[in-house]
Amino acid sequence: MSKASAIKADVGEANRIEVGIVGGTGYTGAELLRLLAHHPRFRPTVVTSRGEAGQAVAALFPGLRGVVDLHFTAPDPARLADCQLVFCAAPNGTAMGLAPALLKAGVKVIDLAADFRFPSAAEWERWYGIPHTCPELLPEAVYGLPEIAREEIRKARLVANPGCYPTATILGFLPLVRAGLVEPDGLIADVKSGVSGAGRGAEVRNLFCEASENLKAYGMAGHRHLPEIRGVLGTLAGAEVGLTFIPHLIPMSRGIHATLYAELVDPEVDLQGLYTRCYAEEPFVDVLPPGSCPETRSVRGANLCRIAVHRPQGGRRAVILSVIDNLVKGAAGQAVQNANLLFGLPEGLGLDPLPLVP
Amino acid sequence: MSKASAIKADVGEANRIEVGIVGGTGYTGAELLRLLAHHPRFRPTVVTSRGEAGQAVAALFPGLRGVVDLHFTAPDPARLADCQLVFCAAPNGTAMGLAPALLKAGVKVIDLAADFRFPSAAEWERWYGIPHTCPELLPEAVYGLPEIAREEIRKARLVANPGCYPTATILGFLPLVRAGLVEPDGLIADVKSGVSGAGRGAEVRNLFCEASENLKAYGMAGHRHLPEIRGVLGTLAGAEVGLTFIPHLIPMSRGIHATLYAELVDPEVDLQGLYTRCYAEEPFVDVLPPGSCPETRSVRGANLCRIAVHRPQGGRRAVILSVIDNLVKGAAGQAVQNANLLFGLPEGLGLDPLPLVP
Amino acid sequence: MSKASAIKADVGEANRIEVGIVGGTGYTGAELLRLLAHHPRFRPTVVTSRGEAGQAVAALFPGLRGVVDLHFTAPDPARLADCQLVFCAAPNGTAMGLAPALLKAGVKVIDLAADFRFPSAAEWERWYGIPHTCPELLPEAVYGLPEIAREEIRKARLVANPGCYPTATILGFLPLVRAGLVEPDGLIADVKSGVSGAGRGAEVRNLFCEASENLKAYGMAGHRHLPEIRGVLGTLAGAEVGLTFIPHLIPMSRGIHATLYAELVDPEVDLQGLYTRCYAEEPFVDVLPPGSCPETRSVRGANLCRIAVHRPQGGRRAVILSVIDNLVKGAAGQAVQNANLLFGLPEGLGLDPLPLVP
Amino acid sequence: MSKASAIKADVGEANRIEVGIVGGTGYTGAELLRLLAHHPRFRPTVVTSRGEAGQAVAALFPGLRGVVDLHFTAPDPARLADCQLVFCAAPNGTAMGLAPALLKAGVKVIDLAADFRFPSAAEWERWYGIPHTCPELLPEAVYGLPEIAREEIRKARLVANPGCYPTATILGFLPLVRAGLVEPDGLIADVKSGVSGAGRGAEVRNLFCEASENLKAYGMAGHRHLPEIRGVLGTLAGAEVGLTFIPHLIPMSRGIHATLYAELVDPEVDLQGLYTRCYAEEPFVDVLPPGSCPETRSVRGANLCRIAVHRPQGGRRAVILSVIDNLVKGAAGQAVQNANLLFGLPEGLGLDPLPLVP
Repeated sequence: MSKASAIKADVGEANRIEVGIVGGTGYTGAELLRLLAHHPRFRPTVVTSRGEAGQAVAALFPGLRGVVDLHFTAPDPARLADCQLVFCAAPNGTAMGLAPALLKAGVKVIDLAADFRFPSAAEWERWYGIPHTCPELLPEAVYGLPEIAREEIRKARLVANPGCYPTATILGFLPLVRAGLVEPDGLIADVKSGVSGAGRGAEVRNLFCEASENLKAYGMAGHRHLPEIRGVLGTLAGAEVGLTFIPHLIPMSRGIHATLYAELVDPEVDLQGLYTRCYAEEPFVDVLPPGSCPETRSVRGANLCRIAVHRPQGGRRAVILSVIDNLVKGAAGQAVQNANLLFGLPEGLGLDPLPLVP
Repeated sequence: MSKASAIKADVGEANRIEVGIVGGTGYTGAELLRLLAHHPRFRPTVVTSRGEAGQAVAALFPGLRGVVDLHFTAPDPARLADCQLVFCAAPNGTAMGLAPALLKAGVKVIDLAADFRFPSAAEWERWYGIPHTCPELLPEAVYGLPEIAREEIRKARLVANPGCYPTATILGFLPLVRAGLVEPDGLIADVKSGVSGAGRGAEVRNLFCEASENLKAYGMAGHRHLPEIRGVLGTLAGAEVGLTFIPHLIPMSRGIHATLYAELVDPEVDLQGLYTRCYAEEPFVDVLPPGSCPETRSVRGANLCRIAVHRPQGGRRAVILSVIDNLVKGAAGQAVQNANLLFGLPEGLGLDPLPLVP
Repeated sequence: MSKASAIKADVGEANRIEVGIVGGTGYTGAELLRLLAHHPRFRPTVVTSRGEAGQAVAALFPGLRGVVDLHFTAPDPARLADCQLVFCAAPNGTAMGLAPALLKAGVKVIDLAADFRFPSAAEWERWYGIPHTCPELLPEAVYGLPEIAREEIRKARLVANPGCYPTATILGFLPLVRAGLVEPDGLIADVKSGVSGAGRGAEVRNLFCEASENLKAYGMAGHRHLPEIRGVLGTLAGAEVGLTFIPHLIPMSRGIHATLYAELVDPEVDLQGLYTRCYAEEPFVDVLPPGSCPETRSVRGANLCRIAVHRPQGGRRAVILSVIDNLVKGAAGQAVQNANLLFGLPEGLGLDPLPLVP
Repeated sequence: MSKASAIKADVGEANRIEVGIVGGTGYTGAELLRLLAHHPRFRPTVVTSRGEAGQAVAALFPGLRGVVDLHFTAPDPARLADCQLVFCAAPNGTAMGLAPALLKAGVKVIDLAADFRFPSAAEWERWYGIPHTCPELLPEAVYGLPEIAREEIRKARLVANPGCYPTATILGFLPLVRAGLVEPDGLIADVKSGVSGAGRGAEVRNLFCEASENLKAYGMAGHRHLPEIRGVLGTLAGAEVGLTFIPHLIPMSRGIHATLYAELVDPEVDLQGLYTRCYAEEPFVDVLPPGSCPETRSVRGANLCRIAVHRPQGGRRAVILSVIDNLVKGAAGQAVQNANLLFGLPEGLGLDPLPLVP
């Protein structure tokens, strides 16, 4: 008897939607596999990796032993075209090589990298330094933040899953910016991320001995998530916004904490009421009671953004605290949420894992 | 709309089994709440705490916001007697004060502490220093390790959930000891535990600044889990066993890694085959392929014991590596597994969370 | 032979200055002992603790075995009065009970808590909730940040050692604020601290399992270091300043990283030149080259503040990054630096330990 | 003014001994630089690195800013030959390429890798898979554990600095094995190491997200330190010893904890007395009082081995607990200790840094 039978959800074969995962050896790919293992409809049938082709997925990720029986395969467009949905969890620049053919074959595509996050190919090229090979797809790509584009996502073929920093930051600023309640040119996002945000590549700076018992800012010259956030907030505001975005590397694996600063236009605004109303119907955004400070671990492993709003010393400056798990609501969980929308499924299907604390 | 509706399993009210949790503010109690939140049959209706009575459970454990709507209450025997099952996740000595009345009222009891782990009240008193107040219940209490007592648990009213170190150690030694394949007087268990094993009490030695970037052995004079392990292994061996048990505190929150040493009676024994056969039908014990080393994170958050067997340099000494999550297979998960058995449910019901990595 | 003889600095008895440490069981007290163990002039002769009186210091802090031969004693004013200098590393409100008699006896006093940090007893009482028992000493107490008050410290009897957050924040803002180069009402300090900043008290929130793999803001209603920073910056600016101060708890033991935001009055100012010149003669402030991001570990264990200055996207907003070890430049190291000044010694005496990396 | 002048030991130029460090970009090389920065006699003048040649040492290791003014240079035998001493902190197989010429030029050599640790070239080649290019030097190379070979080291030209696991393990077993008090064929070393023991190379398995919140054994097929330990213990015992050596990777940066098991020949032996006498004159081995458990942090950053001896439940099995900082007494500190001996200096010169706690 396989252990899988004991701990895998017992679901029938009918109504399965076959999905492929391109780039399955990173943390985002592994997190997709964890979430999809119990998803009642999506069934991963292809997981690609150039470097690990032929290797059992569970050999690389022993936590998936008995649950995921797949082997990594080299990326094969024909095989991917047999899926109904492909998640691209590979480095920037990968998805744009695959998307045109997949879409043509009727496969829906969710890119967890940045290839389709910018409306403009020029903007993409400026920040990522790679010529865009299918700019014609940019107009139809939908920025996959359900809280701002749920209906567009439902109708889309191609979804650009947001970055982790942008998810935490945009959800934190959204109610204020959309309502025009803050000075648009003075936004500050002081954002802290766990190390998994840097991926699973072998780099000295992400070694245990480099990242533990340590803290530093980075990307001061302009992090690639800056134009992504600024662009989306600008659209929400209906005008350009000025944003100072300072990311920090924190000695933990998972979690993003965005500390957001903005000048209120009207100091009398009821911040708590504004946020509570704005997110009242959102299943994956939780506005905390007045006076709260969200902890990153309160969302660890869960597809949730928790937000608290403050006005220190009763001044004109609003301080918004927003936390997500960068691998879940900031990546794989949000991708599954988008996939549910793409296929007309209940938005929260398969997204019930609770935070693991401690 | 409550967030709960989005992320809580949608189960009907019929067929719910009402359960109480005594001592809900520790890590074990919180882990029970996490696991039971998605359990299709058990429904927590009472969670007690003297210190936090009146407080919302989700205020203390923000990760449970939107999922657990209960408030802590002071322990009230009458209210607990309305449950069909009570988990006692309180300090040693608590369950023996509650069990007689609960059993009399027809309530099944699973104690996650040590009150009912010893067949002899004298042995209990020697190691725990508390007079036993209901020694008459000891004969009927079943030591809740399903891998050795599944049928007895099914028929029991009172289950003594094993300690975390004992679970990892006994499952590691079991095949060898039960088959009489090792010298019984020379067992060594060098066991490493994350800090959550020490509980959620405010003690200097468990502060972040004391436990991080540090490692030490402790309990050299005789840890309370020594007689528990020795007793169970002795029963399995049919004779007294000699055991050196050295626990170590490791700078991580969850996880136990037992490194077990034993002298083989017959150096020709097929260790891998022995373990594979022994656990072939066990849903929550995973024997790894030859040459493996299990990682604690491969079971983090999951109700699993993973085991690898080695004979370094081909000698007569067997080295068994056994890992569990001390809060799951070492406590709350095993308690739910036992509860499933007590109520004739599928043994793995509600125990499907996968390991969270990283 | 004592191990001490091998690893303790071989210094003569003559010219020793006897010092007492009140409250020697916290992290600050232990750090004073580490630094003073090799100090060529200061010799700790009394280390007090109510709770540990009679216990060997090295039994509580095994890292000091063979180097510190003292035992904790209950606080005894007469014995402390035999010292030439007393460091008070005890909780807020302790030093004000001891200082009058010690000063009268000719003993110099450095308080590492907050009792003498405010010029006004009313301000102290508002934030600390304890009536001040010797407000008459407040005018003569010197705020012990050598970079702004070196000469006053040299002549002082009573030094208020700055808080850890204030040290990192004030040194970061100082050149800009003193020169009037920033809008004084819009300062933001987003500050991150390791857990040792919370002390060695047994509190659930500082347990390993609560603080590791986690990050949160706290003290939103007004942290006690807010008025301290605001007051000092106001003095430097010659006018009240508006400051938003948001502290965060980081899963590491040592280190503070202040990320400081300010609006430049003149966007053409040469930030790098300003800071380099301002701190050119300062032995314990290191201005990094343009484009740098200081790591907290680059000062771990060392009495240093490292600072980098940025103007993201060339805008009007300056971003200053300032790091210290909260227990050294933020507490014990700065106290030794102040003690050197008080006794006319070279300012860096005994402050040569280099950062420990990794 | 350079910051160095404030925090660097003020030593004269006369009597400086010029030293080179080959392989200065790893943790061992950086630790040598930290220790030598305050050494009164040794002065690093050459630090080599192929990859970082031309780069300032302090740019790679910002903690050394203001103290170390050197730049990395490509390895140049002629330049190294101008030194009086060369530390080789490079990968295995490097030192044997440099040593013959350096020794011929009158330069003393301390290799921190394994090239000269085995008396037999065949043994080296079996475990390291590299042909030995100067087997003629093996007879004169001295295994640099001062506690067993102090006098030989004083007279040596070529020292093989012991491995980190061997240092902790051999010092732990030494008194028992040398006195013939244990069964020589049943030794067990269950050893736990922080991640810095794996070096500073960019490997996935040492990433923060792989190593934190995790624990595993490794090297079950035979770790390279096994023959090193077995060989030295065999020499001490005057006969072959049987050793089971199981290393474990622990989520901390620094520290080794060896838990050692041995069967006593005579159960009446006074373990505490034996160890206390054996190490009474050793400046860098500290035998703890009866009942103690050494913490790794009690030696963090310090050149010390702390040992405690136990006989659990009064049986025939001895359990020895031995801790070191793998980068100090297990590498760079021991190398400086050996260098002091080589040059007839006081053995502890420059080795006074105290443990950094927390």
